[in-house]
Amino acid sequence: MTVKQLPLPALTEACVRLGIPGVGLWREPVHSYGLEAAAKLVRDAGLTVTTLCRGGFFTTTASPLDDNRAAIDEAATLGTDTLVLVSGGLPPGGRDLASARSRIADALAELAPYAGERGIRLAIEPLHPMYAADRCAVSTLDQALALAEPFPASQVGVVVDTYHVWWDDRAPAAVARAGAQGRIHSFQLADWTVPLPAGVLTGRGQLGDGCVDLRAWRRLVDAAGYTGPIEVELFNDDLWARNGTEVLAETAQRYVEEVFES
Amino acid sequence: MTVKQLPLPALTEACVRLGIPGVGLWREPVHSYGLEAAAKLVRDAGLTVTTLCRGGFFTTTASPLDDNRAAIDEAATLGTDTLVLVSGGLPPGGRDLASARSRIADALAELAPYAGERGIRLAIEPLHPMYAADRCAVSTLDQALALAEPFPASQVGVVVDTYHVWWDDRAPAAVARAGAQGRIHSFQLADWTVPLPAGVLTGRGQLGDGCVDLRAWRRLVDAAGYTGPIEVELFNDDLWARNGTEVLAETAQRYVEEVFES
Repeated sequence: MTVKQLPLPALTEACVRLGIPGVGLWREPVHSYGLEAAAKLVRDAGLTVTTLCRGGFFTTTASPLDDNRAAIDEAATLGTDTLVLVSGGLPPGGRDLASARSRIADALAELAPYAGERGIRLAIEPLHPMYAADRCAVSTLDQALALAEPFPASQVGVVVDTYHVWWDDRAPAAVARAGAQGRIHSFQLADWTVPLPAGVLTGRGQLGDGCVDLRAWRRLVDAAGYTGPIEVELFNDDLWARNGTEVLAETAQRYVEEVFES
Repeated sequence: MTVKQLPLPALTEACVRLGIPGVGLWREPVHSYGLEAAAKLVRDAGLTVTTLCRGGFFTTTASPLDDNRAAIDEAATLGTDTLVLVSGGLPPGGRDLASARSRIADALAELAPYAGERGIRLAIEPLHPMYAADRCAVSTLDQALALAEPFPASQVGVVVDTYHVWWDDRAPAAVARAGAQGRIHSFQLADWTVPLPAGVLTGRGQLGDGCVDLRAWRRLVDAAGYTGPIEVELFNDDLWARNGTEVLAETAQRYVEEVFES
């Protein structure tokens, strides 16, 4: 999504050229390209599909389970082991976040065994509290872990995304706990820059442009025992308006400067 | 600030006519009108000054203590017992929220006795985490309470503002704890509406327009033993563009419908 202006073939080609070993995919471009074709394209390029984004929206969709089962199947076809969940916010007119989280728990109970049987881990992504109303009632790693803990780690875990949790003084302890449980199923990077744009969806900063101590978060996640892929997920109008391969090269360079640990 | 388009005399007159018994003031309009004159205006109208907004910005101002002592003196002159603190975010180029909070703690240690001697309570306002970088490193009631607890409640407490804490599943317990300690020094209302505007400063919703269960928060604060004034603090471009006395009347009506407990 960092370079959503790149069609899948250009994306995979650029990843290979830059030495980026894996790529997180979103469902919409995969659907457009064709699921089987996308799976073959990435596999033939020698790339790992790090995660599929996204399932979820359990609270605001009439029948979320069918679509989430389809997302799990798609993840399996793509050869990734992780489906990222953006769980959904308040239903229209709703004011009860606890009830929304309870609906999320109910949906997980339905989906977790289905995912486990197919080798897919559901990764609950806590979103920044500014999205609590309209995108995700799960706002902290503590909440995400509490939702995951009833299930085996092989079925349900969490996403640690620096953009969403960087402000939270309780997040480091939650990272350690999640790591000890083997529940860090994805680690994503974006920087926090101000001012936020209208709608607050497309202002995620390029690595190093903002105020998140990305290397400190990387070390936290390392110390928690995480050895999986590290994704960079930037929703950023300025980056999307530029040449995609240039943005990808810049992002890889920033990763080396701001996050890489020798 | 809800009706910042109203000059102080029109504001006090409208409050009296609507039966609103008190008003929270901001420093800038008080300075413009004249401190002593503003104090006399509100006093002669028979209104209480509920709070003065705001001190703080401990992390980003070179010499914050002098200005905060001045704010304490102004609060005393206005006859309010509460100065609201917006504590400040990261210094330019900074990435360390813990260090920013430590600077806030240091500033409080300097200011608390000075405030106490003048009958002024400092009220630490946790701001929504979307302001952590640029306005306030104190993002939760838990953090605000932790900063307040080293001091007597007569010197330092917290603000409970629904706009900033509505998303936080730990806030209700913190409200109870703050109440038991006598540290709820201000209770402010605003609703949460989406989409957020660019800069995210001026999108606070009129009571009832958003997804915050305002009456539930009022009952929480009541149950915690709070008996002080309830302020409505809306930063909202649409409301500011309208006739101020109409907005004030509408706000009072919404308060009756959405918050009032008989």
